Amino acid sequence: MKRPFPSRRSFLTTGATGLGGVAVGAAASALLFDDHASTPAADLVTGLGTTAVATPFPHQAGISVPARQQSHGTVVAFDLVATASAGQLKTLMKAWTAAIADLTAGRVPAGSSEATDTTALGSGPCSLTITVGFGPSLFGKAGVSPDARPPELAPLPAFGTEQLDAARSDGDLGVVIAADDALVVFHALRTLTRAAAGTATPRWIMSGFSRAPGSSPDAASTSRNLMGQLDGTNNPTPAQPGFEGKIYVAADAPTAWLRGGSYLVFRRIRMLLDSWDAQTTAEQERVIGRHKDTGAPLSGGTEHTPVNLSGQNPDGSLAIRGDAHIRLAAAASNGGATILRRGLSYDDGLKPDGQPDAGLLFLAWQADPNHGFIPVQQHLTRSMDALNRFTTHETSALFAMVPAPAADGYLGQALLEPRSA
Amino acid sequence: MKRPFPSRRSFLTTGATGLGGVAVGAAASALLFDDHASTPAADLVTGLGTTAVATPFPHQAGISVPARQQSHGTVVAFDLVATASAGQLKTLMKAWTAAIADLTAGRVPAGSSEATDTTALGSGPCSLTITVGFGPSLFGKAGVSPDARPPELAPLPAFGTEQLDAARSDGDLGVVIAADDALVVFHALRTLTRAAAGTATPRWIMSGFSRAPGSSPDAASTSRNLMGQLDGTNNPTPAQPGFEGKIYVAADAPTAWLRGGSYLVFRRIRMLLDSWDAQTTAEQERVIGRHKDTGAPLSGGTEHTPVNLSGQNPDGSLAIRGDAHIRLAAAASNGGATILRRGLSYDDGLKPDGQPDAGLLFLAWQADPNHGFIPVQQHLTRSMDALNRFTTHETSALFAMVPAPAADGYLGQALLEPRSA
Repeated sequence: MKRPFPSRRSFLTTGATGLGGVAVGAAASALLFDDHASTPAADLVTGLGTTAVATPFPHQAGISVPARQQSHGTVVAFDLVATASAGQLKTLMKAWTAAIADLTAGRVPAGSSEATDTTALGSGPCSLTITVGFGPSLFGKAGVSPDARPPELAPLPAFGTEQLDAARSDGDLGVVIAADDALVVFHALRTLTRAAAGTATPRWIMSGFSRAPGSSPDAASTSRNLMGQLDGTNNPTPAQPGFEGKIYVAADAPTAWLRGGSYLVFRRIRMLLDSWDAQTTAEQERVIGRHKDTGAPLSGGTEHTPVNLSGQNPDGSLAIRGDAHIRLAAAASNGGATILRRGLSYDDGLKPDGQPDAGLLFLAWQADPNHGFIPVQQHLTRSMDALNRFTTHETSALFAMVPAPAADGYLGQALLEPRSA
Repeated sequence: MKRPFPSRRSFLTTGATGLGGVAVGAAASALLFDDHASTPAADLVTGLGTTAVATPFPHQAGISVPARQQSHGTVVAFDLVATASAGQLKTLMKAWTAAIADLTAGRVPAGSSEATDTTALGSGPCSLTITVGFGPSLFGKAGVSPDARPPELAPLPAFGTEQLDAARSDGDLGVVIAADDALVVFHALRTLTRAAAGTATPRWIMSGFSRAPGSSPDAASTSRNLMGQLDGTNNPTPAQPGFEGKIYVAADAPTAWLRGGSYLVFRRIRMLLDSWDAQTTAEQERVIGRHKDTGAPLSGGTEHTPVNLSGQNPDGSLAIRGDAHIRLAAAASNGGATILRRGLSYDDGLKPDGQPDAGLLFLAWQADPNHGFIPVQQHLTRSMDALNRFTTHETSALFAMVPAPAADGYLGQALLEPRSA
């Protein structure tokens, strides 16, 4: 059969077209092009489609790498079927490990072919990342000992003001899929779902978006959420001291199978946009504690100026109000608790009452939720965060996102085969 | 207040950054930069963010312009409130006309400011188009005479196999919003919704996606749907003889207010992906009549080779089966009936039964639905299109999409002020 367009593999390895022109780093080249070792890395010029994200061992990709949130993401939870055995769970994790290696490199997954698996054919990897973890409810199923569950993976406590939908919360397995093309994300979702058939089925699926690459002239600029705020200004960055220890489980942590992993708290946060839009801009800025257009804190400066929580207005009042969101969420207000925030906006149309079913898919990454999301959210609810009036936490999930698999291993192996760890 | 990033307007007019590097055509420059007439058009180098789509008078943008479907789209229907007057409806259409001119040029809408309307601040127009029309149910409301409804705008007949959800079908006003950034689409949706407050409220909203620019090395290549098929290969193009007359209402058509407009049939078509994936690739190809990977018709050739409906296999059987989708949908099988198809894939997670709530937001544009969608769909259902087993039409709407507004006029003016037409 004639092929008027290149295969996914040939597209990746010959890809000199596309937008932008970003050279793949040597590490990524070595990972992806090991069967084309003669290709000089400098010749591998990539763009939106051809960009592949290398695994930042010992971590999975999709947490702090890539630095920029891709423009599309799907978060999916799977539940094991009642009959799933320990062997089936291991087989599934091996299958996902192999599929993820292929998909994130832009290859048709092994066991399939370009004639049959065509949904993303013609598209490059588009910075696809797929990040896998285990929920509290996995422990006690399919041969996973209840005793293996680390104390940090206890179900989250109840928080004031949340209105959780149990059917769209929690799950045995959690997967975050993100890329700069929605079709590539969907194809990955379908591939993982098919691979799970007979062992696990999707419990819930939610999808969202962030700014498209190239939409803004400043690629490094902070993206905005549906309330119009710059969202993520104060995120920790890997260049900051202590980042690794706050976001990733330490190499000497007691839970051996999770060393190099991270805890993900996932919340679907509905925004009450009609109420929000009815506020004056000045009131919206007081609720958050930042200027809406520039993102600068109300205590002065520009977007990235450190927040001065004791700064005062000329009349002596606090520049950042007592119930302002950034005051209550600040690490300084929470004993240094830190999270790495990723966010995807969602627009799911209308609620039955005609109000927007829209908001934020909120992902908080941390080495320990007890020193991350939990104290921050407890503080926000107990101290009556002004933002609470305009948001509703609708769903919640906690997953222990495992480390990257060893070169010849698979995701979660150190838990599922503890003797080999 | 310091501005660490450019305003939407300055971004547009100074935009020399961004991906790609596509020069805005002279027509677009004249339209968009009339207040910066000294800027040479050749200096206006644009990319994904900075690309603005000019109105192709007498048509609205978003039908056959731009040629490439943008990567994100939202289709929204509004119903007038019961008390809406003729004056309110005119005021709304004037407000939408002004907002659309601003939004599609990347400007903050008049009456707002960059301090308050920040959701898309920092993003360019991203090829935003907004296309507006009237549904059958508008006639008889808000001073619009029932007698003004053209016969072509009669509600669609019932089709076999459809399972329509009335609450997510039809509507007084229909709007299609599309751009290469989902946040820009959402911002436009909110802007139009706020402008309608007190006159019309959203009846339903659906969103979908197509391939991101740069995802594929061949920017002109056909996009794929969630079944993995190339979708839209046989679309008519403006370069073909008779295109204008088949897609747009003629300049001498009896319905004076719609001259230059087009009829939109919108269907939410769910794909039964688990059933589809259970078929062999050969059977999938027989259902459609094309090869899955290349899109070439089973009668031979490559993707764009004309389909030979009488072509035979070596054993004498028809190469394209009697119930194949492309046979039954072909213009040759429907008295020459032609539609311009646009499609957006949607992934709305899971249905209550755990099956994918995913498929195609199908937009069919034509000068007359009686010579477009209606006969084709009747033929597809009566002749037992093989694809019917794998799809369900869940919602339906028909809108008369009005011509572009005159330079100092507004959308729908020729209907709402017939004496001035």
